[in-house]
Amino acid sequence: MDRPSAVATLRATVAGFATDFLPGVTSWCVALSGGPDSLALTAAAAAALPTTALIVDHGLQAGSDEIAEVARRQAHDLGCVDARVLRVTVGASGGPEAAARTARYAALGAARGVAPVLLAHTLDDQAETVLLGLGRGSGARSIAGMRACDPPWYRPLLGVRRGITHDACAELALTAWDDPHNHDARFTRVRLRTEVLPLLEDVLGGGVAEALARTAAALREDTDALDGVAETVLGDTESTETVAVTALAELPTAVRRRVIRRWLLGGGAANLTDKQIRAVDALVTAWHGQGGVAVGSDLRQQRLFAARRDGRLTMYTQPV
Amino acid sequence: MDRPSAVATLRATVAGFATDFLPGVTSWCVALSGGPDSLALTAAAAAALPTTALIVDHGLQAGSDEIAEVARRQAHDLGCVDARVLRVTVGASGGPEAAARTARYAALGAARGVAPVLLAHTLDDQAETVLLGLGRGSGARSIAGMRACDPPWYRPLLGVRRGITHDACAELALTAWDDPHNHDARFTRVRLRTEVLPLLEDVLGGGVAEALARTAAALREDTDALDGVAETVLGDTESTETVAVTALAELPTAVRRRVIRRWLLGGGAANLTDKQIRAVDALVTAWHGQGGVAVGSDLRQQRLFAARRDGRLTMYTQPV
Repeated sequence: MDRPSAVATLRATVAGFATDFLPGVTSWCVALSGGPDSLALTAAAAAALPTTALIVDHGLQAGSDEIAEVARRQAHDLGCVDARVLRVTVGASGGPEAAARTARYAALGAARGVAPVLLAHTLDDQAETVLLGLGRGSGARSIAGMRACDPPWYRPLLGVRRGITHDACAELALTAWDDPHNHDARFTRVRLRTEVLPLLEDVLGGGVAEALARTAAALREDTDALDGVAETVLGDTESTETVAVTALAELPTAVRRRVIRRWLLGGGAANLTDKQIRAVDALVTAWHGQGGVAVGSDLRQQRLFAARRDGRLTMYTQPV
Repeated sequence: MDRPSAVATLRATVAGFATDFLPGVTSWCVALSGGPDSLALTAAAAAALPTTALIVDHGLQAGSDEIAEVARRQAHDLGCVDARVLRVTVGASGGPEAAARTARYAALGAARGVAPVLLAHTLDDQAETVLLGLGRGSGARSIAGMRACDPPWYRPLLGVRRGITHDACAELALTAWDDPHNHDARFTRVRLRTEVLPLLEDVLGGGVAEALARTAAALREDTDALDGVAETVLGDTESTETVAVTALAELPTAVRRRVIRRWLLGGGAANLTDKQIRAVDALVTAWHGQGGVAVGSDLRQQRLFAARRDGRLTMYTQPV
């Protein structure tokens, strides 16, 4: 028997994903950059359900409007029922990559109506995301990668190698846009892709991208399960404004830290670091009368603290 | 104030470790190879408690007896109350590295009496172990690294960079043995140390070894917590010979897989792969009347299977 074509593989993958994770859905959107991954996804999506292609023009590179227009025409040729270019203005908050991302998701979210949006992240993107997270060192949360289902965002190609999407474009005689950013070694992700992953494949004897993706999926399951346990514990406490230290002390470390994290977030904390959570945890497990622990928050003119008082954890604010 | 010397840092680390994790212990052993990590650990251990140095001579390299004898004399000079060379015969099971390891731990275990044994693994060893595990892709269990406390084995230096042990040897004017294996690029671990980690540090902007070690510690906590939940679930079931599918189906995926793993191990399974556990899990979550799933075991002349019968998971054997 012949090996199935790349196009056939992608069609089966996307159709199976729809059955498993989007039952009852009768139309969807695809986020299309014009690159090979999203172009191949658009082709497979349009073969399965009425598809609207959403093309974000970030306006950051010269000729980005032309690239978007080429993608729009390709989407029509691939049988999309609609294809729209969304022009966005990219801010500066959090650095250029994060700002572009924020603008892109906002535009896609506004344009999708009530339809789910398919994103073209592949197994290789997932592997790169895991390696990026390793550098943060914040445990499972930072290396659990991207979710296949994160409504309204869906990633049907997370189990598919990038080579398949490129092959599918070749089979369909599609000329994909080759983003120069994908070759720019100033981007960490590009160096992970072109230097680190090939070296790891060589040293560890192959299969590393798949292994990283499997690890991401397993850690995602672990994190979901532990978050669920933490949620139950916090739901069982009589009040969430303060928490009894005795109730926390008997929990396993991984659960206790997650309960503390949730409790802090519920009290207005934001951008929590591992170090802050450990310092609050020490109020429970290594108590020697220490004072309040400053934790991150979005409060203006105020700093947020967690402290131990009369055998309970409590939060308070102070003017800056 | 001057920065504390490397020797002072190690002494404080080892003494603090003893207080936290080995309270009441009045003497201990150190596994000494003669290399810089274990030599520096021996010095710090002997400064804290009466210490017996155990030096394993694997007899695999020419002159290994002389290296062991040098280490024995160094241990005496460092104030150890005893220093013994343990000659072992290395088998062939599982490859040369695994066989040497098996022989080494068996000899240390037999020689220690009732005393705990300190091992000199550093933060850098932990980081390499995480990277090694990434290639396996079996989730948290494969990248959770080494335990600081795994009685009778204890690793007080898991939070200490290798540079500190080398500096301590220099401060003490100790000439450590330089194992040629540590420079042999045929060993995966050596290439991780000399090629992959430096590249990752460069690409991710530093702090990678520490981040990997933090990740290992966090994943260890996660795994311990989830194993604890799984143990409770399995303990709550009326019988462990068979398990009701309905009880399993309502568990979070990460817990359910761990319950299945424990249940299989309790029924005589061994060397379980992620694939086997997923196949048994499918008997619960993707049931369509499929037959028994062959799982790994140490049984002779028999194969072990897990199957679903009358709404329960059960195990049975078949002659090969």
